[in-house]
Amino acid sequence: MTTDLRVGVVGAGLMGADHISRITQRISGAVVSAVVEPDAGRAAAAANNAPGAQTFTRIEDAIAAGAVDAVLIATPGQFHAPVLEPALEAKLPILCEKPLTPDSASSWKILELEQKLDKPHIQVGFMRRFDAEYQKLRDLITSGDAGELLMLRAVHRNPSVGESYTQSMLITDSVVHEFDVVPWLAGSGVKTVEVKYPKRNSLSPEHLKEPILVLMELENGVFVDVEMNVSIQFGYQVATEAVFQKGLARIGQPSGLQTWKDGKFEIAEHQSFVTRFASAYDVQIQRWVNAVTAGTLVDGPNSWDGYRVALACEAGVAALDGGIIAVEAPERPAFYA
Amino acid sequence: MTTDLRVGVVGAGLMGADHISRITQRISGAVVSAVVEPDAGRAAAAANNAPGAQTFTRIEDAIAAGAVDAVLIATPGQFHAPVLEPALEAKLPILCEKPLTPDSASSWKILELEQKLDKPHIQVGFMRRFDAEYQKLRDLITSGDAGELLMLRAVHRNPSVGESYTQSMLITDSVVHEFDVVPWLAGSGVKTVEVKYPKRNSLSPEHLKEPILVLMELENGVFVDVEMNVSIQFGYQVATEAVFQKGLARIGQPSGLQTWKDGKFEIAEHQSFVTRFASAYDVQIQRWVNAVTAGTLVDGPNSWDGYRVALACEAGVAALDGGIIAVEAPERPAFYA
Amino acid sequence: MTTDLRVGVVGAGLMGADHISRITQRISGAVVSAVVEPDAGRAAAAANNAPGAQTFTRIEDAIAAGAVDAVLIATPGQFHAPVLEPALEAKLPILCEKPLTPDSASSWKILELEQKLDKPHIQVGFMRRFDAEYQKLRDLITSGDAGELLMLRAVHRNPSVGESYTQSMLITDSVVHEFDVVPWLAGSGVKTVEVKYPKRNSLSPEHLKEPILVLMELENGVFVDVEMNVSIQFGYQVATEAVFQKGLARIGQPSGLQTWKDGKFEIAEHQSFVTRFASAYDVQIQRWVNAVTAGTLVDGPNSWDGYRVALACEAGVAALDGGIIAVEAPERPAFYA
Amino acid sequence: MTTDLRVGVVGAGLMGADHISRITQRISGAVVSAVVEPDAGRAAAAANNAPGAQTFTRIEDAIAAGAVDAVLIATPGQFHAPVLEPALEAKLPILCEKPLTPDSASSWKILELEQKLDKPHIQVGFMRRFDAEYQKLRDLITSGDAGELLMLRAVHRNPSVGESYTQSMLITDSVVHEFDVVPWLAGSGVKTVEVKYPKRNSLSPEHLKEPILVLMELENGVFVDVEMNVSIQFGYQVATEAVFQKGLARIGQPSGLQTWKDGKFEIAEHQSFVTRFASAYDVQIQRWVNAVTAGTLVDGPNSWDGYRVALACEAGVAALDGGIIAVEAPERPAFYA
Ligand SMILES: [Mg+2]
Ligand SMILES: [Mg+2]
Ligand SMILES: [Mg+2]
Ligand SMILES: [Mg+2]
Repeated sequence: MTTDLRVGVVGAGLMGADHISRITQRISGAVVSAVVEPDAGRAAAAANNAPGAQTFTRIEDAIAAGAVDAVLIATPGQFHAPVLEPALEAKLPILCEKPLTPDSASSWKILELEQKLDKPHIQVGFMRRFDAEYQKLRDLITSGDAGELLMLRAVHRNPSVGESYTQSMLITDSVVHEFDVVPWLAGSGVKTVEVKYPKRNSLSPEHLKEPILVLMELENGVFVDVEMNVSIQFGYQVATEAVFQKGLARIGQPSGLQTWKDGKFEIAEHQSFVTRFASAYDVQIQRWVNAVTAGTLVDGPNSWDGYRVALACEAGVAALDGGIIAVEAPERPAFYA
Repeated sequence: MTTDLRVGVVGAGLMGADHISRITQRISGAVVSAVVEPDAGRAAAAANNAPGAQTFTRIEDAIAAGAVDAVLIATPGQFHAPVLEPALEAKLPILCEKPLTPDSASSWKILELEQKLDKPHIQVGFMRRFDAEYQKLRDLITSGDAGELLMLRAVHRNPSVGESYTQSMLITDSVVHEFDVVPWLAGSGVKTVEVKYPKRNSLSPEHLKEPILVLMELENGVFVDVEMNVSIQFGYQVATEAVFQKGLARIGQPSGLQTWKDGKFEIAEHQSFVTRFASAYDVQIQRWVNAVTAGTLVDGPNSWDGYRVALACEAGVAALDGGIIAVEAPERPAFYA
Repeated sequence: MTTDLRVGVVGAGLMGADHISRITQRISGAVVSAVVEPDAGRAAAAANNAPGAQTFTRIEDAIAAGAVDAVLIATPGQFHAPVLEPALEAKLPILCEKPLTPDSASSWKILELEQKLDKPHIQVGFMRRFDAEYQKLRDLITSGDAGELLMLRAVHRNPSVGESYTQSMLITDSVVHEFDVVPWLAGSGVKTVEVKYPKRNSLSPEHLKEPILVLMELENGVFVDVEMNVSIQFGYQVATEAVFQKGLARIGQPSGLQTWKDGKFEIAEHQSFVTRFASAYDVQIQRWVNAVTAGTLVDGPNSWDGYRVALACEAGVAALDGGIIAVEAPERPAFYA
Repeated sequence: MTTDLRVGVVGAGLMGADHISRITQRISGAVVSAVVEPDAGRAAAAANNAPGAQTFTRIEDAIAAGAVDAVLIATPGQFHAPVLEPALEAKLPILCEKPLTPDSASSWKILELEQKLDKPHIQVGFMRRFDAEYQKLRDLITSGDAGELLMLRAVHRNPSVGESYTQSMLITDSVVHEFDVVPWLAGSGVKTVEVKYPKRNSLSPEHLKEPILVLMELENGVFVDVEMNVSIQFGYQVATEAVFQKGLARIGQPSGLQTWKDGKFEIAEHQSFVTRFASAYDVQIQRWVNAVTAGTLVDGPNSWDGYRVALACEAGVAALDGGIIAVEAPERPAFYA
């Protein structure tokens, strides 16, 4: 009787398993109908949390079986294109975890393929846009109540990262979120990127030189700095301060249960993105499901946004070696207007 | 293919309409299959937000039509019993908005009827238990990390109320929430209730004498005060401070976007329960749907809790006229253990 | 060349020694010219911190020697009268630490003696009135910006007390401050006092039954509660929340250096009145010195205020045994208008 | 009988008048014995607030008259040298408001003159070092409790400035404070200075291009950014965030009376340095008076610190035109060790 959207989740790692639980337990109007995952054990474990879901090793098989109405891609970035292509050919709506693809050239190819369809089919999983505080900050900027926006001052602080985290991932895995959300907040694209090196944190993995301070100029003159810190131990903090002509705004500050113990007033800080953005992930997926059901297909960052982010990441990675690097973007195709 | 729980929502007023939107748009595994509402216009408007839902004027008809797997009652309290009775007879799981019924005698009759079934079928809609901060406070109390709980100090402040809000509604409509959540937090029932009258707020409707300060002793000796204020103009605030042997905890404090404007640091305060408890309502209904689907039927306050609250409200209303009023409860039936 | 006020400090215990350091190191226009203290070792130690000060065992000797222009009394309360009397006879301005005397009858005798002079000569050391936040709260109340004041909700939390601290000292040593500052804030005297007993803190000394909740009605109808807690371990907190017709105000909240460490956002809480009221003590003494130098003699609570506090304390101590105890005060003598 | 330090205050403008009131009303052990001010009206007005003070038009006359034990210089910076020279020749202790002199070359001459004396006689009026929160932050850095310091992130936000405020004053009048306090906090001198231009605030005076973001590298590798903003309207805010290996610390955040009014939780923000640093100025002068009385003469930033600040300001002003400008300092003379 009910006609829930049948979502095929591709990739049943940490992120994919999380989305499977989310859709099954908290998202209205959608079920996980297929789990696409080459690792059989992982696939079975994931399907276990999605009653009624079939398992496939390749997206092509799930499509051929008519098992999915929409696709959610949660594999590592280098495996996105091989899923995006058949899904686009099958004209399926797609929620693709960030990044769209690992580089701007391969992203551009995806955009070319997508433009053969009647309208954009891909939403990219930049979930910060769905966080309630980011939305309020954007509303304040748009309202002009505090005057023009002059600066955005962001911090992204992680307690620690594993040995496999590389220097360029500071940009492509972490600052990447700012490359999406900053233009969305400020209403203007990234024009230049520069990187400064503060004193190195000797608690970082040996091959990393961080924290870094990323400086950006936007096309509208707004200046942005991003403190990117992945070994700060105490907890997980993603926060932004906006500097306006007539005042300030700040998001991402401590909240919730307050305690007074052992001589201190305390508020627990987040330890990872899991709690910090729990609600943002839910809202993102629910709104995507609703958009797909309504035929709009996309309600958030689209593949053009993903392509712009890829360009900014390339500038950012180049900037790790010094200099002020320009971000050159082509005209936005009318298809994404 | 999917087997969403088919919920019949009884009452399509403010609260009912809100639940209909919630189940339709945000709750996983459930759909609104029936809207039961005698007012035809209201019923049609509500059904409009629930694709596929049928409308009925009486719950008995919805049951007879086999249209519902579970019932959510959102009518005014005096109309709860006439819905609870046929729903219980039909052995349907029920989420009943507070209060269970308007008085303890009628509540007791509902309990007697329910006890003819195999297990409790009624959950009462005290949503505070599903608020993340209340849950953390309860965890802290249970953990003993700050020592034994000694006092709970609650405030419930409303900007204003309409002319139809009566003096006894200070207890039955507002403090009622504390009568549920305080015993849940403290692990102990209400033993006595007393009311103190601070200086009257001349901005209250003329027939009201408020704010009031409600004092309670719990069976375990914990002392509770509740400042109940319904004309405080500035906003909506529900907050609690817990006093332990070795420290304090506080919930319900301002959070979210911080701004500096016009010489002030500011955080917007809530204006009504709608935003303050938005997430709590969602979690409550999702967990109830999950419990019903799993066959547990109840995951939250049950009708015994609702009965205890009715007894406390009767003491509270009596206490409005002075004196320290005892709350006398019978033994809890084993059925509700 | 300079004509600093020559202050005789009576009592060189903890409080007296603190005042001696204060006047010597931080107060402008005053020097400690005499230390009056029967214990020779204590006197010598104190005088050591006040270059040029003479030591005396009795106030009468200091007066006879012409060694003091003004007297600051910092002995235990039961020794105040024997100092106040000769000082008043010598027409000296006096700053007397709280309480004026241990009971209302002996306080009244002091008032009678003082009224033989041309104007009030005694200021009582209720230092809270000189705390910047208390002053701002009073300004807000007076301004009417948030509407009429309806309630004051105070907390006084101490980490611990020694074995010599008795049950009645909850009133006479601790709540005593509220009996002064509440009428000053609310512009109205204490009419009744009642005491409630929350669950006892088992970490208290065995002979104490606390925390207590002290309820007061003021003559203007404002209702006051004071949570008095002397074994709460975590730190020292004196805070007040004011409930107005149109809003709230709160003082005494955590402030200063904020840190993020070990998963927590933290602000250090005070550990005693020494840091909490450091600035208030300085301001109190400076303003008193200035008033004495200017011939006004008193700039703060006078002996009539001290007498009213003594009456409220007697009601408070009676209320420890139950009941709502009225505070009966005579008319204020015109002398103290 | 008392032997208060006789201070000659040079310059009776806004700052000088403030110091005269301070010494007269709040500083222990010192009196204003002379006001040195060429403007007769201003001199008379100031002397009026300092009972017993003589007025002079030139510092040389005050010295010749034997009227002063110490000198406090509060004239504009370009008039400091003509006062410093005779005061040093007279071997008088000096508290000189910032800057020591307007440029490093003239500062160096003052240092040469001072080195003819037995020890440093000049303290420079960088009052931030005496602010309680700055001191706590420095203690935390020194303690190592949060690990090594990696970054300092400062903001200095002013509501507005007059037309006479020039572009270079962003550095010499405002960032100058950071050039003193940052090395004091971090235990390391400024190595390079760079300036970035965010979007210009169109509410600034027409000839200003601000806010600016000043980036500094310290000799120990700590990285510093300073947001300097002089037209931000909402209020006055001087704040710093320290980024450590294992956590964060923040000073300068809103504190004091909290109110809930008109839908908002509010804390009043400062409107100028007068309230923000009131206590720091008092502590600075009291500690200087105490040091002079004790024969130490200096207890705070000395003229070497003032010289280092002058060098950093010159780099900062050069950096306004672009580039990363190095700060080259000679070896510190042993005299200032
Ligand atoms: Mg649903
Ligand atoms: Mg679902
Ligand atoms: Mg002085
Ligand atoms: Mg003094």
